[in-house]
Amino acid sequence: MVVAFSAPIANYFSFHQMLLKIALAQTNFLVGDIAANIDTMVKAAIHARDDLGAELIVFPELTVTGYPAEDLLFRADFITEANNALYQLADRVDGIALVVGFPERDGDKLYNSAAVLHQGAIIACYRKRALPNYGVFDEQRYFTAGTSPCVFEFNGLFIGLTICEDVWKHGIIEDNQLAGAELLLTLNASPFNSGKIYQREAIICSQVKAAQIPLVYVNQVGGQDELIFDGASFVVDADGEIVFRAEEFKEQISVVEFKGGQPIKTSCTPLYNEISSEYQALVLGIKDYVRKNGFQGALLGLSGGIDSALVLALAVDALGADKVEAVLLPSRYTQDMSNEDAILEAELLGVQYHTIPIEPAVHAFTGMLADIFAGAKKDATEENIQARCRGVVLMALSNKQGKLLLTTGNKSEMSVGYATLYGDMSGGFAPIKDVPKLLVYQLACYRNSLSPVIPERVITRPPSAELAPDQIDADSLPPYDILDPILERYIEKDQSFDQIIAAGFRREDVVRAISLVDRNEYKRRQSPPGIRITSRAFGRDRRYPITSGYKGSKG
Amino acid sequence: MVVAFSAPIANYFSFHQMLLKIALAQTNFLVGDIAANIDTMVKAAIHARDDLGAELIVFPELTVTGYPAEDLLFRADFITEANNALYQLADRVDGIALVVGFPERDGDKLYNSAAVLHQGAIIACYRKRALPNYGVFDEQRYFTAGTSPCVFEFNGLFIGLTICEDVWKHGIIEDNQLAGAELLLTLNASPFNSGKIYQREAIICSQVKAAQIPLVYVNQVGGQDELIFDGASFVVDADGEIVFRAEEFKEQISVVEFKGGQPIKTSCTPLYNEISSEYQALVLGIKDYVRKNGFQGALLGLSGGIDSALVLALAVDALGADKVEAVLLPSRYTQDMSNEDAILEAELLGVQYHTIPIEPAVHAFTGMLADIFAGAKKDATEENIQARCRGVVLMALSNKQGKLLLTTGNKSEMSVGYATLYGDMSGGFAPIKDVPKLLVYQLACYRNSLSPVIPERVITRPPSAELAPDQIDADSLPPYDILDPILERYIEKDQSFDQIIAAGFRREDVVRAISLVDRNEYKRRQSPPGIRITSRAFGRDRRYPITSGYKGSKG
Repeated sequence: MVVAFSAPIANYFSFHQMLLKIALAQTNFLVGDIAANIDTMVKAAIHARDDLGAELIVFPELTVTGYPAEDLLFRADFITEANNALYQLADRVDGIALVVGFPERDGDKLYNSAAVLHQGAIIACYRKRALPNYGVFDEQRYFTAGTSPCVFEFNGLFIGLTICEDVWKHGIIEDNQLAGAELLLTLNASPFNSGKIYQREAIICSQVKAAQIPLVYVNQVGGQDELIFDGASFVVDADGEIVFRAEEFKEQISVVEFKGGQPIKTSCTPLYNEISSEYQALVLGIKDYVRKNGFQGALLGLSGGIDSALVLALAVDALGADKVEAVLLPSRYTQDMSNEDAILEAELLGVQYHTIPIEPAVHAFTGMLADIFAGAKKDATEENIQARCRGVVLMALSNKQGKLLLTTGNKSEMSVGYATLYGDMSGGFAPIKDVPKLLVYQLACYRNSLSPVIPERVITRPPSAELAPDQIDADSLPPYDILDPILERYIEKDQSFDQIIAAGFRREDVVRAISLVDRNEYKRRQSPPGIRITSRAFGRDRRYPITSGYKGSKG
Repeated sequence: MVVAFSAPIANYFSFHQMLLKIALAQTNFLVGDIAANIDTMVKAAIHARDDLGAELIVFPELTVTGYPAEDLLFRADFITEANNALYQLADRVDGIALVVGFPERDGDKLYNSAAVLHQGAIIACYRKRALPNYGVFDEQRYFTAGTSPCVFEFNGLFIGLTICEDVWKHGIIEDNQLAGAELLLTLNASPFNSGKIYQREAIICSQVKAAQIPLVYVNQVGGQDELIFDGASFVVDADGEIVFRAEEFKEQISVVEFKGGQPIKTSCTPLYNEISSEYQALVLGIKDYVRKNGFQGALLGLSGGIDSALVLALAVDALGADKVEAVLLPSRYTQDMSNEDAILEAELLGVQYHTIPIEPAVHAFTGMLADIFAGAKKDATEENIQARCRGVVLMALSNKQGKLLLTTGNKSEMSVGYATLYGDMSGGFAPIKDVPKLLVYQLACYRNSLSPVIPERVITRPPSAELAPDQIDADSLPPYDILDPILERYIEKDQSFDQIIAAGFRREDVVRAISLVDRNEYKRRQSPPGIRITSRAFGRDRRYPITSGYKGSKG
C-alpha cells in the first residue's frame, strides 16, 4: 500500500543554497475523530501554504487518530478508516508536502508511522523504531517496531523522519545521517509534566549537537483524559541551539526558513516558569476535558478551603465564569468563616452559587441507621455519611444540568486516602488530583498574583475537612511540609522505607505515610481521572495491585 | 550472582531407566508477601519430599513475588528482597530440588526467571524469552526478554526450563531440544477465562506432540484483583496425551513419576463443564479478594432481582453464610414481590438480613433540591438519587463493620451504563461485572441445580431496576438475547458496526448498544474491580480513552 523509498547513497547532490520554508503544525486533535483530524490538517496545510509560504508542513505523532488512541487501535475498522483517510488527505491538498503520523497496517502488523504526502502521492513512509512501553506509554501493546531509517529528498534537501522516542535514544539520529539525512523532522506526542520541557530540550539539543544535524521538533498540544500535551515545538540548529520555539499550551502554525539546510534564527517564545506552566497545564486540562466531552459547563462544591478555591479559579480561567457553578454544602461542623470565604470566592470570580445545607439528608440517614448502629462508637462512618450526602446533591445537579462535576481533592489526599469514596471523590474529573498540597498553596498564591481571587484567610488557616468538631488535617496526618516530600520520594521516586528515613524523616511519619498509601489503592482505583502534572501520577503511570502483601511500610 | 549453567552437548549420558518423581506445586500466593510465599514453598517442598517421595518440585511463574506484582516490580527494595529470599530458600530445604520463579535483577535489567535450587545452590537459571504484552499482560513494561534456552541435568535426565508464554510460541520448545532437553518444565501464571482450559491444553498438547517431548505444566491458583488463576496443572507425554491433571480452582501438591524420562500415566481430574468452571471461578474470586484483603466478611444489597440473588449465592458459597449479610433497601417503587423474594433468598441461604427503607433519605434530598429543580422535568436524576441513597446506607454498614460491600451489576449493565455511579456501583468488589445478563440466568439455574436457593419467580420475571413506576429493563434496552450477542461481538471481538449488522442484527439495536458502550467509558473507569471470566473484561484488558471522537457506532 505504502510506497517504499530508498535512502540516498550520499548527500552531495543537494542544492545547498536553496531556501525551504517548513511549517510546524502544533495542533490539538480529538482522539478517534479521524474525519475532524483530517479537516484540521487540510486547513492548517492550506494556511501554511497560502499565508505563510511554506512548502512543507510537519504535524505531530499519530496525527490522523490522535494520541493516545489506546485500544481503539485494535479495531480493524478504525485502522482501515485511518489508512483510507491518509489517501484522501494526500488528494485534498497540493502545492505543499504534508508530514503526518498514522497507524500503518501491514498484514497483521501495525506500525506507528509517519508519511510524507506530496501532490497526491505518499513519497516516503517511516516506521517508528523506539516504542516506549514505560510510564504512561503502552506502545508495544499495539505496534511493531520499525527497523530502518527513512530519508527522502525534498527540494534538493535530504530529510530524515523520526518519531518522538526515537530522538531520545542514542543511535537513531546517527542512522539517519548514515542514510544521508541533512535535516531531521520529529513528530511528537510528548506529554507534559513539571520540568519536562527543560528536560526535553536539554536531551534533544545535546543529541543534535553531538550529531551536528538540525532538527524540527513538532509536538501536539491539548488535553486527553489524564495527559496534557504542552506543544512548545521547536527548531534546533546543527550546533544544538534553539532557533525557534512555539508557544506552550496553545495551538500554533509557525514557519521556519531553511537556507542550505540550516534554519534561520527567528522568534523563540520564552518558556514559562515552573509554577505558571503547571497552572496553564491545569487550565488546558479542564478546558479540553469539558470541550471534547461535550459538557455544558462545570460545577463544584465550594467548601471555603484552599483546594476547592483553587479548582474554582482554574475552572473559571478554563471555561469562563458563566460556565461554572459553585455549590456550598454546609453541615453543622462548617464554620461561618468557611461559608463567608466560599461566597467571597464565588463573588470575586463572578460565579453563580447556591447554598444547600446537608443537614436534612444527614439526619435522615442517621435515623435510618439508628437501630443497626445502636451502641456502636462514632467513627469515620459518620464523617463519610456527610461527605456522601454532598456527593449525592452535587451529582443530582450534574445529572440534571449536564454539567461536569469537578472534584477538589489533591494528590496528598489521594495518596493517603484522606477522602471519601462516593463522597468528595464523586465527580467526572479531578483537576488537582496530581497536585500535592504544598503545590496547591503555591498555585493559589500564583493565581492571586495575577489578580486577587482567593481570600488570604483561605491560604493561611490550617486545612480541615470539617467533618467533625474542631477537626484539622494535622490531627491525623503529618504536617504537609513533612508529608509531601515523603510522598514524593515513595510514589514518584520509588524510594524504600530505609532511603526515606536516611533522608532525615522521622520513622513514625514515614510508617504512617507509606502504610496509608499502600492501604488506599482501592480508593484511587475508583477515583475520577485527573490531570497529570508530576513525573508520576496515579493512573496509567503507577499500576499497583490492590491485593498486596507487600510490607514496604514496615521498614 | 546467579550461577550460569551451560547446556549439555548431547543427551546420551542420561540414564534412561532411572525413576524420577516430580511434584507439581499448584499453589496460591499473595502478591507482594515474599516472606509468606517463601514459607509456603518450604512447606510444600518438605511435604513433597517426605510424604510424596518427590525429588524435584516445580512451582508456578514468579512464585517468590506472586503474579502479577505490577509496578511493585519497579521498587528496588522489593526486587532486592525477592532476590535475597531466593538464596534463603535455597538454604532452607535440602533433599529435594526446587524450581521457582523470581524477578531476577542483573545490572539495570530485570528478567522473569526460573531458578533450580538444589542442596543450597542455584544450579540453573532461565530467563523467560516470550514476554506477553497484550490483553491483561504488561510484561514488556517490566522485563527484558531472555535470549537462550536453559537445560540442566538432574538425576541423569536433561531438563529444559520454560515459562508460560514460551510454550505457546513456536520455536522455543525446539530450541530446548536442540540444547539437549529430554523433558520440559513450564512455570505458569495463566489466568482463567471461559474456555481457556480447553484452549490451553489443546495448544500445549499440540506443540508437545509435534516436538515429541514430555512436558510438566504447573499453573498457579487463586484470585488476584481481577484475575483468577485456575490451576489445572498437567503433565503431557511425548505423544501429546495428558497423563495427569490436577484439580481446577484448588491448591494441590501432586506427584508424577517419570521412568526413563517418560511420565507414567496417573489420575486425571476430569474438567468441569463451562458453566460450573465459571461458577467456581467466581466463588474463588470472592473468597480470595475477601481473605487476601483482610475483610471481616461481605455484605450486599438484596433487591429481589436475579443479579443480587446470584451474588448472594456466590458470596455464601465463597465465605459461608455466617460471613455474609444482606440488606433490603426498598423504595416506593419496590414491589412486594421483590421484598418477599429477597427475604426468601436470605432465608434459603441462612444469611442475616436487615430491611432499611430508603424513603426518608430520598425525601430529604428531594426537599433540599426542590428550589433548584423547580420546574424541571423528572429524568434519570431522580432515579439516581434513589440508587445513591442505597449506596450511602450500604457503605455506612461496610465502614462500620469492616465488611466488603459487593456490588451486583452484571457485564451487560456495565457495558451500556445501565447502573448508577456512586449508587448501585458503590462497593469494593464487583463479582459479576464480567458476567453478561444471559449468563447470570444460566449461573442461577446451575446453582439451583445443586440446591434450590434462588426462587423460581426471580428467574422468570422480567428484569427491572425498580427506580420508576412499572419500569422494566426492556423499556430502554434491547432484550438481553439481542443485546448480549451484540455486546460480545463489539467488546470482546472488536467487530465493526457493519460486521455486526451483517451477522443479522437490526441496525437500530446495534446503534443503540454500541453508542451506549462508547458513551459510558467514564462510568466503567470508576467501577470497582471485579472477576474476569470472559476473554475480554473491562479493566486492564480493554483500555479505552474516555475522551474519544470515534464514530464506530454511526456505521
